[in-house]
Amino acid sequence: MKIEVGKSVMEVNNEIAQAVRDDLTQHGIIGLNLMASPGAGKTSFIEATHRAAPDIPLVVIEGDVATDIDTVRLRGQGVETFQINTAGGCHLLAKMIADALPQMNLTGARLLIIENVGNLICPGAYDLGEGIKLVLPSVAEGHDKPHKYPSLFQKADAIVLNKMDLTDAVGFDMDYFVGGVRNVNPDSPIIPISCKTMEGVDVWIKWLRDRLG
Amino acid sequence: MKIEVGKSVMEVNNEIAQAVRDDLTQHGIIGLNLMASPGAGKTSFIEATHRAAPDIPLVVIEGDVATDIDTVRLRGQGVETFQINTAGGCHLLAKMIADALPQMNLTGARLLIIENVGNLICPGAYDLGEGIKLVLPSVAEGHDKPHKYPSLFQKADAIVLNKMDLTDAVGFDMDYFVGGVRNVNPDSPIIPISCKTMEGVDVWIKWLRDRLG
Repeated sequence: MKIEVGKSVMEVNNEIAQAVRDDLTQHGIIGLNLMASPGAGKTSFIEATHRAAPDIPLVVIEGDVATDIDTVRLRGQGVETFQINTAGGCHLLAKMIADALPQMNLTGARLLIIENVGNLICPGAYDLGEGIKLVLPSVAEGHDKPHKYPSLFQKADAIVLNKMDLTDAVGFDMDYFVGGVRNVNPDSPIIPISCKTMEGVDVWIKWLRDRLG
Repeated sequence: MKIEVGKSVMEVNNEIAQAVRDDLTQHGIIGLNLMASPGAGKTSFIEATHRAAPDIPLVVIEGDVATDIDTVRLRGQGVETFQINTAGGCHLLAKMIADALPQMNLTGARLLIIENVGNLICPGAYDLGEGIKLVLPSVAEGHDKPHKYPSLFQKADAIVLNKMDLTDAVGFDMDYFVGGVRNVNPDSPIIPISCKTMEGVDVWIKWLRDRLG
């Protein structure tokens, strides 16, 4: 008699994520897992990236609890976008990406941005098959976020700090913010930007081009 | 033979929440479950409430993934505050409140504000024994939040919209926001405030006093 021991949710997720990563690599695509609080400007960041580097062939997966508001926005700008609604789920799973990819036109794409559900906690625990984990805090959330939600910042390959145009209005303390990131993540770049004024977006694009190779 | 069917996590949570509610009622206290995104201004809202109504005897439970930054802030203002760290958990559970209460000085208190973990999704599913569910979006998160995260707004007894001082800087569309709330919640008040300028805090305090009776 043989007793099969079931795999954990996390093990299954990791296996599927690896298959997604292999699939993307075969297509010549790097995945970017975009993680942030609700309202940090994730969709505006995707739009700014596309505007500043229209030559980088981009496809997008939008993860939301409800609505397709962001997908409609991105499709309006000619970006191939696939909507996932989690119906209450607080993060995406690799299986959702694996199911989405065959339904998308990936021809010629180099970059897949996966906009995760707005949440600074749970998304960090689930590999989606990405090559880049990006955390997008905004100055409007305050300078203490890396202190209070360290796990996501620890895992980030890049931290892009959005809404720099609001710095003075909210009294953002950059040194305290950077200190919080450096407590858990000594090396990843911290790139301040404003998707409204496009300040700093060129620095982000340069980093992205280096990673895409 | 009798097979005991285990209770679900949610059933156990609901039972403990009811016991917490009974315990609070015996103490003459109403619990307020404060739910919001990271950085919406939850602790500033508690401070503003205490400042505007110092005669309402207040105690606080602070829920955070990590750090006791907010507890230190509130204790500095003389507010009895108990810190819960969830170590990665994305919401509080009734059991955490039940364990905290015997460690707090509740003598004379009328209001217990429970600052939940910063998250617009999961906290809504877990009763903590509160009498009031309050959602605190901020204009900086954008006017589409009730559309994208309907569940929490549906359950709210009051929606307090914070950071009104940033309205112009972020281009907030109040009609679209209110429409999103009303799609799922026809009756609960929507109270615009700024914890920075104290605009509207008097309206919130009036509503609170009516509830406290």
